[in-house]
This record gives sequence, structure tokens and C-alpha cells, in this order.
Amino acid sequence: MLVQSSYGKSRVRLVQLQRGRGRHDLRDLTVAVRFEGDYEESYTDGDNTAVLPTDTMKNTVYALAAQEPVGDPERFGLRLAQHFLARNERLTRVRIDCTDHSWHPMATGTGEHGQAFVRIAPGARTAIVEATREGTTVAAGVADLVIMKSSHSAFDRFPRDEYTTLPETRDRLLATALTAVWQYSRTDLDFTLLWGDVRDMLLEVFARHHSESVQHTLYAMGQGVLDTILQVTAIRLTMPNKHHLPVDLSPFGLENRNEIFVATEEPHGLIEATIARSPGGTVL
Amino acid sequence: MLVQSSYGKSRVRLVQLQRGRGRHDLRDLTVAVRFEGDYEESYTDGDNTAVLPTDTMKNTVYALAAQEPVGDPERFGLRLAQHFLARNERLTRVRIDCTDHSWHPMATGTGEHGQAFVRIAPGARTAIVEATREGTTVAAGVADLVIMKSSHSAFDRFPRDEYTTLPETRDRLLATALTAVWQYSRTDLDFTLLWGDVRDMLLEVFARHHSESVQHTLYAMGQGVLDTILQVTAIRLTMPNKHHLPVDLSPFGLENRNEIFVATEEPHGLIEATIARSPGGTVL
Amino acid sequence: MLVQSSYGKSRVRLVQLQRGRGRHDLRDLTVAVRFEGDYEESYTDGDNTAVLPTDTMKNTVYALAAQEPVGDPERFGLRLAQHFLARNERLTRVRIDCTDHSWHPMATGTGEHGQAFVRIAPGARTAIVEATREGTTVAAGVADLVIMKSSHSAFDRFPRDEYTTLPETRDRLLATALTAVWQYSRTDLDFTLLWGDVRDMLLEVFARHHSESVQHTLYAMGQGVLDTILQVTAIRLTMPNKHHLPVDLSPFGLENRNEIFVATEEPHGLIEATIARSPGGTVL
Amino acid sequence: MLVQSSYGKSRVRLVQLQRGRGRHDLRDLTVAVRFEGDYEESYTDGDNTAVLPTDTMKNTVYALAAQEPVGDPERFGLRLAQHFLARNERLTRVRIDCTDHSWHPMATGTGEHGQAFVRIAPGARTAIVEATREGTTVAAGVADLVIMKSSHSAFDRFPRDEYTTLPETRDRLLATALTAVWQYSRTDLDFTLLWGDVRDMLLEVFARHHSESVQHTLYAMGQGVLDTILQVTAIRLTMPNKHHLPVDLSPFGLENRNEIFVATEEPHGLIEATIARSPGGTVL
Repeated sequence: MLVQSSYGKSRVRLVQLQRGRGRHDLRDLTVAVRFEGDYEESYTDGDNTAVLPTDTMKNTVYALAAQEPVGDPERFGLRLAQHFLARNERLTRVRIDCTDHSWHPMATGTGEHGQAFVRIAPGARTAIVEATREGTTVAAGVADLVIMKSSHSAFDRFPRDEYTTLPETRDRLLATALTAVWQYSRTDLDFTLLWGDVRDMLLEVFARHHSESVQHTLYAMGQGVLDTILQVTAIRLTMPNKHHLPVDLSPFGLENRNEIFVATEEPHGLIEATIARSPGGTVL
Repeated sequence: MLVQSSYGKSRVRLVQLQRGRGRHDLRDLTVAVRFEGDYEESYTDGDNTAVLPTDTMKNTVYALAAQEPVGDPERFGLRLAQHFLARNERLTRVRIDCTDHSWHPMATGTGEHGQAFVRIAPGARTAIVEATREGTTVAAGVADLVIMKSSHSAFDRFPRDEYTTLPETRDRLLATALTAVWQYSRTDLDFTLLWGDVRDMLLEVFARHHSESVQHTLYAMGQGVLDTILQVTAIRLTMPNKHHLPVDLSPFGLENRNEIFVATEEPHGLIEATIARSPGGTVL
Repeated sequence: MLVQSSYGKSRVRLVQLQRGRGRHDLRDLTVAVRFEGDYEESYTDGDNTAVLPTDTMKNTVYALAAQEPVGDPERFGLRLAQHFLARNERLTRVRIDCTDHSWHPMATGTGEHGQAFVRIAPGARTAIVEATREGTTVAAGVADLVIMKSSHSAFDRFPRDEYTTLPETRDRLLATALTAVWQYSRTDLDFTLLWGDVRDMLLEVFARHHSESVQHTLYAMGQGVLDTILQVTAIRLTMPNKHHLPVDLSPFGLENRNEIFVATEEPHGLIEATIARSPGGTVL
Repeated sequence: MLVQSSYGKSRVRLVQLQRGRGRHDLRDLTVAVRFEGDYEESYTDGDNTAVLPTDTMKNTVYALAAQEPVGDPERFGLRLAQHFLARNERLTRVRIDCTDHSWHPMATGTGEHGQAFVRIAPGARTAIVEATREGTTVAAGVADLVIMKSSHSAFDRFPRDEYTTLPETRDRLLATALTAVWQYSRTDLDFTLLWGDVRDMLLEVFARHHSESVQHTLYAMGQGVLDTILQVTAIRLTMPNKHHLPVDLSPFGLENRNEIFVATEEPHGLIEATIARSPGGTVL
């Protein structure tokens, strides 16, 4: 018995260049398309008569981009979702995931160059659109935004058992690769403006928070977004705790005044939570 | 409002060596621990009094391994889950994920060497244990098992629209990196024996199936497992379609008799489904 | 017969924090140490009496950082190289490789925050020091600086044979992940100032060049550095050609006015050259 | 002044299927082509008249495979090298790097299946061909063969200074990801047979050696190959020391009888050496 299924195309790489006078606009996206619907016969009987090929999904990404500039990734996701819903009767739920790889105009001696770009990646911008026959939801996010704070971060007063060796600290490095997704209340917003606002608020709270733990700071970051950006109904934050361990210098007759650390990749803590305006709040 | 949260430790790397006479047993695991429970105060108030440090979770992995050999990864997951549930009042749900990195005794001129090993990785073995105060569930799986079939694979009779360029074919390469997770009906099984049985069945069906699509073969593989291995209640299969495209040799005056392909990484199809004995069947 | 050998420690991860008033300075390095010397007995006889453990090399990285701030990665490389040469009689050549992971003070509503940082990575800064009993050489570089230009890039008038299908073009996207290493004439320079000058020059020429090929632009970039920065004696540039292929939209009845591209990862061109002031010029 | 240059195509992905009766032969290669020669004008003047496009190099890989089965990767490298040398006057040195991704026929209940395959990767087979107008050299190798030994591995009697904390040990885990390249004396050998012989010898010595250090075992492995396989003139081995550190269980009141280890990724030791029959011996 088929209790759940989906199919689609991942990692469709689209670059669109708009050639303005002197200045080019560059949009670089990785797109994924996922279909859910009444496709049981394709699984049970090998009947493909309703199965839009994933190759056609890919072609559609390029064809729609060619007919109208991509613009915001959320907007492009909406166009793709509506297109697929309108064309595929068996489709009940379509999801579009976009990752926007940001290119910045290159700085030169005489200002920004309009036709040369640097890929700078302090976390990728992501957008998710999910549409059914009943309605459409838009979410946005940031992926792998690597941040660190070197003050106002503590972890103490935790329970100890016979396997606990961690010392208490009121002053540690707190580093993470932030991934967040937040859900919007509507589908007709200025998504690029809002995206910057949310990201700035996440960073602002992270920088200023007097942290008792990753959990504590994660919650404050989500709360900061919900308090100030009314178009966001819920936010999910994922924050690995990328440990920076003070190096024991005592064997060398040296003191570590909390200044020399080894950055580690594994193991790492992993803290995740969803914060919403109302009990039923969810995020795509 | 905190609508969902979890915290834990990921990528705990444990190697256990059991020194038998002449022959060593080597177990190499990557373990992740995840807690859900009544930890709201740690998020909202920075109150850590109930928060078992993730560092202690890590230490516990090593300490429990030291007290009794790890054995099956499912069995070790059960021990860890019970340990944490018994010790942490606020904990309502604990999940242990183990990935087993298989090492094989090295073949030498005079047979297997008992104390030298090769890491061979035709897909990693995975195990998941989830425990609450009400009950415990065990699942197992395989990750990234890369397989290909070069006959009996077709994809045709699909719908065409103005963006469809894919030709129909009755003879294509079908390649995937299979990831599967299957749920067991009980927690006291011979997990290692069963794991081999499930994997073998998955490969057997993949090899023999007359495939009309990835969906068709995926379903047959899951059905094969459910039909023959009664201890499995549901299985989720994820099969990216790693496209191998015939190279167009006509510009060189050559014919491609379906023998020369370019292996591509992106974009790729992505097919996923869960197959269960009963309508409510799920997989961890 | 041992004709060449080296040993050392790679991926030593050092983070140093200097706590100024209000503002912290953060230095994040990955360091590698490599020894060459008269160590034959360790290979042939298992005689370790002269083999400084690689674990001690790692400890030395931390201990020297603790005694004096790291500063420029080139400077830290020089300190490490001199330390090891002075202590190890059998050592004839020591090489230190540093990769500097740049963190930027976080922008907040009221200016830069002095104790919170974002990792922004438009290419990592690298430094190499190699020292023997006869002398010391310093080189610096940039790794994986991803750049693209959308005008003034051509590739045509190339030879054609029966396997050539590439069309000629006077207008293509040119994208690469630049890795460069340049050799300095002395060891007492302002390395941080120079590093910025070299990187800016590389980008400036890349942006402005009327490119006939990757080779053509690579050479101009190297020449630009040698022409303007006298402290550089030679430079090696490695530029993969990260192809952006125009999508064929004609099957959809659409025209591609050189605006819609698929970004590809493989295969890729790979162009590499060393440009020097004099015939014998080399780069570490 | 251009003191060194090369250009070429990397990561050309070729899959060739030979359809025998009942049984298919599958060859899966990643190929890189590199040209050195009199191409200065392309760098200095943007003159492409002698520059074979790297796209044509890629097409040639597919076209030559179509005309005659690939066979041994060394053999295919020789064909490509000769083809390019014969066609390109300015070319003085061509290098072909092949990585062979091994697929194994799938085991089924009734024996091996001839048309279904599993990718098993205990180290990839590599082949290198370099050809000039004067002669041709063939080398082969293995990449990232992950191996471990749990007995007969020591490291002690090393020098200690004030930064040394490593304890001496007569019993440690020794793990590495072996990469080796060996040079053949001729170009008309049975490369597949020899490749297996060399790999088996490397593993055999690794398993049996009473190791005083990585250096010691590395040398013995190379010596074992040179002593028994006369067609090999030199071999270069690269062996990262993938540390497995005993976990300190004493805080938990437990003893670690050298049985519980943490596997680490970084930092790691890195040992490299070339062993040859004669003083001038080198490896591609």
C-alpha cells in the first residue's frame, strides 16, 4: 500500500542575465520541483500516462524564465507552481524550492563594475512555494550563514551526572551555521525587502543577545523576527553548535586567557525549534 | 510561542575494538542523539537546570560502549535510548541515529587477516531508535547504495506538452543512489540478519525488475521487502534518478548504438515513496 | 631507494581572539606543517629518534600563537618555520601553509558590532612560507575566488577538426574560481596591504579585460600584478573554466538572446600558467 | 614572461556499455586531458589559431570510445595521448588522467546478475599517461583506499621538547586513506593484471608489517612492490595518519583497555615518499 509518494527534479541550475545599458542583472538559481498527487498507477502498474517527465519540469524552468525575468525567487516559485497546477490534473500539491546564489557587482578603482561579479556567500537566500488546489504558501530562508559571537555567551547551571565533564562557563565563543525558514502570511509581499529585514533582525539579535545557551539565543532570534516583522507567521531555526574549545596550554607552562581555541567540526550540538504566533503555526 | 523544539549531539564518532584471539572485531559508528521534551524554560528564560549538556550525551555514548560491546547498531541505539529516558524526567522523546561504517577483514595471500581491515562502502547501514514513555520503535536502513541496471529499463508513454523534448525509450541505463529506511514490528529481532535480508531483496528486485519508470521499480522493491520479510511493517525508499545520457555522436559521423553515455550529477530526478502494510503505516 | 620524502601535520585549526576594549580581533587559520630532511632511518629502520611527532608540530602552532598574537598569516608562518629550523637538526626544508578564514564584524543598526562576526568568503587568503638553512621564501595567494564577467568575453578563430562542435562566439559568460599564488621578493613586507593590492588588481583586470580566451585573460591578470606590484616576482594562476551554456529554447518556440544559461560543474576547462619577471621565476 | 603553462579539460565523464550475450561490460571513467606546448600567443595576444578547444578534447574522448572499446584505462589513455600528439603540431606534452569507477555485477540468489551492478569503492583505480615527441610514460595508482590495522603498530622513542604531550605507545590503531601512484617500465603491459598485483602487495605488507611509524610501514609497502613486481620502477605513496584517539574514560570510573577510540578527521598527519629502483627514479 502506497501511503506517501512524491517525484520531481532537483538541482536545476538556471542563470539569467538581463542586459541593461552599462549594467547587467544576474540571477543565479538552483531550483527543485516536487509533485504529489494521484500517481499511484505509475508506481503499481508502471503506467506513465499522467507522469509529466522530470525532464519537462526542467525545461519548464528555463522556458518560463525566458518568457519573463525571474525576479524574486519567491515570485518565480509562484509562477512555476501555478503553471504546473494548471497543466496537471492529477497534481494535488506542488513544491518549488529555490536557492539564490548571490553575485555582487565587482568593486573597481572607479566604482562598481556593471558587468563583472563576485560570488560572495554569507549564507544563501532560499525560497519555498507550496501550492495545492486550496491555496498557496510562501516561505523564505537563509542557509548556512556562518556567524560567531565572542562575548555575552555562557553555558552553566546545567545538570551533572557521572558522565558529565563539561566545565561551566560564563564566557565562551558561540559559533553556528544558521539555517532558518520563515513562513509568510501572504503571497503578494515585497519578498526581497522582507528577506533583508528578517536576516538583519536575526543577526542583530544574535550579536546583542546575552546568551545562556544556544537554545536561549535561538529563541530570542525567532522572537525578534516575529515581534518586528508582522508578515512572518512562524519561523524555524536550526543552529548547530560549532564548538570552539579552549586549548589546554598548561603542559607548555602557558596560560590560556580564553584566547586560543581549536575550531572543531565534529561532534557538534544541534539545536532546532519552531516559533510561531499561534499554537498551530508551522513552516514549510 | 514555541511550537516544536529538539536538541542533541550529532556526529559522535565511536570506534570499538574487541580483541579476540587472533581476530579483532571492529565496530565504527557515527551516532546522533536528539531530545524532545519539556525544555521550554531553556529557550524562553535561559534556564539550563534540566538541560543535559550535549557534551554529556557524547560522553555517554563512549561510556556505555565501554561497559558492554556495542553489537548491532539497533541494539546500541536501544541501550542509549533507555539510558536517557530513565535519567531525564523532562525528556519525552529520544531519537538515536547510528550509521555503521563497515570495515572488512583484509584478504591476504593466506586468507583473511584478523587484524587488518578495508573500508568498503557499498552503502552504509543505518539504524534509528525512537523511544517515548509509551513505547519504542526501531527502524533500519541503507544510505547511498549506488546501483545501476543496463537492461529492462524503459520510460515512455508519458504526456507531452510544448516543453517536452525527452524522447521515449525502451532501453536506458537506470542508475540511482538508493537510500531506504524500513520500520520493524518489534524491538527484539536479529537485526543484523534481517538487515542483510532486506538489502538483498532490494537489490534482487532492482536487478530483475522490468522497469517502466523509477517509480515502478521503487514500488516493486518495497513490495518485495514487505512480501517476504514479515518483521518489516513499512519502508520508505528514496531514489534519485542519476541520469546517464546517450552522447550524440552523429556530428562525428558515428552511430551511438546505446553504448556511450555521459554520467551527470545535476539536475537529477528525485523519486520518493513510503509503502506500508496498512494505511497508517509510517517510517521513522 | 628513498628518492623523496616529507612528513608533517595538516589541518591544524587555530582560532585566536584578542580582546580589545569593545572590539575583539579574531584570527581563524588552518595551518599545515611539512618537514623534509635527513629522516631516512625512520623509513628504512623504523628509527624515530629524530622524528619530531606531528602531534608536537600541532602543539607548537598553539603554543607560539599563545606567546605572541598571530598577526599576518605570512608572519606567523615565518615564526613557525624559524622555530622548527632552529630546533631540528635533521630538518633541511620546512614549509608552512596557512589558510586565513576571514570573519567580518557584523553590521548592526548602530554600526559594526565589535564582538560578533560573519564569515564571508569571497575566496580565502592563503600564505606559504618555505625555509631552508640557506634562505626563506614567502608567497601568498587567494583560493577559490568565484568570479564572472558578462561582457567582453569571446572565444573564436580556434582550429576545427572532425570532433569539433563548439560554435564560435564573441559574447559569452566567463566564470571561474580563481586560485592564485604569488611569490614575494622579500620576507619583511607589509603582507596584508600587499595582499589586498594584488587581489584588487586581479579583479580589476578580470573585469576590464577584452578577453579572447581564458588564457588571454589569465595572462593579462598576471601581467597586471607584475606591472604594478614590484614586490611580486612571479605569479601562478589557476582558472577552471566554469562553463555557462546557453539553453536551446528553439524547441519551445522561444529565442535565447544570450540571456538564459545552464551553469555546469563538469566537465570544465582548466587553464594554468606561471608568469614571472625572469626566466627562472617560480612560485612555491 | 610566461614560464610555465598548461590547459585542458577535466572531469569528462564517460560510461561505456558493451552488450554481450547475457552479460554487459560496464566501464565508467572520469578523464582529464592536459596540453603543454607552444601556445604563448594565445596567452599574450589572444591568438587562438592553434588552440584546440577543450570542448573538442571532450568530444574526442567520446568519439574514440565509440570507435573501439575503452578497455584498460591505461590503454585508453595511450590512445588519447597518441591521437592528440599526432593532430596538434604545437603540442609538446600531453597528459591523460583516468579514474576508473568500479562497478561490480550484482550478486543475486542465483549468482551474479550480468546486467545489474553495484558501485563498490575500496579505493578508485587511477591511470596516468604522459607522452611527448620523445617518449611515453605510463603510471597507475589507487586513490583513497581506506585501511586500518589494529595490531603491530607502535610509535615511540621519538624526541620530546617542551611542546610534546604525545604518550609513547607500542599498540595503537593505524588508519589511513592510501593514495599511491607507481610508474611502469614499459607501455605494453597487462595493466589490469599488474594493478591487482600491486594493490594486493600494498595491502599484504600493510597488514603484516610490524610498524614503528607510518613512515616505516609506508616504506615497507613501497619496497614490497619494488621487490616483487619488476615492471614497476618507482612508487609514490601518500598516507594521511587518520588518528584514532583512545577516549579518556577515567572521569567515569572506567578503564579504557585500548578498546574505545574517537575517530578524528582533523588535524591529521601526512606522510609522503617516493621509492625507486635508482636515484633518478620519479613518478608522474
